[in-house]
Amino acid sequence: MSVLPKSLEKLIEALGRLPGVGPRTAERYAYALLKSDVSKSAELSDALTNLHDNISYCPKTFALIEKGQKYSYLYTDPARDKTVIAVVAEPFDIVALEKIGEFKGTYHVLGGLVSPIDGVGPEQLHIKELISRIDEDKVKEVILAINASVEGESTALYIQQQLGDREVTLTRLARGLPIGVDLEYADQITLSRALEGRQAV
Amino acid sequence: MSVLPKSLEKLIEALGRLPGVGPRTAERYAYALLKSDVSKSAELSDALTNLHDNISYCPKTFALIEKGQKYSYLYTDPARDKTVIAVVAEPFDIVALEKIGEFKGTYHVLGGLVSPIDGVGPEQLHIKELISRIDEDKVKEVILAINASVEGESTALYIQQQLGDREVTLTRLARGLPIGVDLEYADQITLSRALEGRQAV
Repeated sequence: MSVLPKSLEKLIEALGRLPGVGPRTAERYAYALLKSDVSKSAELSDALTNLHDNISYCPKTFALIEKGQKYSYLYTDPARDKTVIAVVAEPFDIVALEKIGEFKGTYHVLGGLVSPIDGVGPEQLHIKELISRIDEDKVKEVILAINASVEGESTALYIQQQLGDREVTLTRLARGLPIGVDLEYADQITLSRALEGRQAV
Repeated sequence: MSVLPKSLEKLIEALGRLPGVGPRTAERYAYALLKSDVSKSAELSDALTNLHDNISYCPKTFALIEKGQKYSYLYTDPARDKTVIAVVAEPFDIVALEKIGEFKGTYHVLGGLVSPIDGVGPEQLHIKELISRIDEDKVKEVILAINASVEGESTALYIQQQLGDREVTLTRLARGLPIGVDLEYADQITLSRALEGRQAV
């Protein structure tokens, strides 16, 4: 027989499925929810119920939008330059880039990166739609804002091939030393890229 | 204007209220829930809805029980010795003790520890009910299974005072070196307690 009530066990089990949450953390979350006001768990419960119903993907950028919206405002906003596209792997990467507040182009979410090990081929990503947008919107620059990993490099290479002889500048985010990191702790590849991409002071 | 759909922002906000969860972790949880099957978030949502409705406290031990149950089975089980009570601070401490599978007495949850800084006085804890149980069930031993902290010590002292001249043995969990920890890394107080409580080999 279980020491805890069944409804609590169920909650712990459900919370334990969140990424990086083990049984102890799930217990801690469950107990905090139990001790807090009923309204707090009701809010979380409501947010979860509405999650899949209210969220949709923009058919142009594949960013997350409210259901009922046609396109993401990051695409329709006239202040944004449709001829510059920042290509990202996941929708949340847009949040990170928007926080800088400097980029005035539009976005395109691939929905992942090419990764044969995980069974993700380029045809599962929104690359075809990216090419269509490039032709439709007369795009001048595509910025690859994707990870500097093997998957990121494969994806970049595939996109470059797909562009063919279109007159588009393909750029990617600079690789180099992150701010605040000591040179002696930087790994060899990062350091090699930082040396390669050195700039005049 | 927010980059993310409102329903997602709400979920991130609600998840961010869990203990130790910052905005980045909450984002990660929310995105994992969004990407996973609808049934997964529905399960979590249901578990949350039923949480406060289905859980109650045992009026004897203050352990968590299903609503509808009268007492915790940890109290009513005839195989359990009602004359031995392990006093714990929170309901989840029972889970930790039950996992050992050695303790055959009953439990009593205080609902916290005496902590003037947090405004928790002894009258807010279930100490009065503990004294009643001691008289009713002719309790022979009370084991204080509470933290070896200042709050734990204050609580222990208060319970000792409340027992008065009742014929009850008051014990507490042994303080000493935790298994697997090197002597050189143990703090002074732990080491001093371990020396004090040394046992014949």
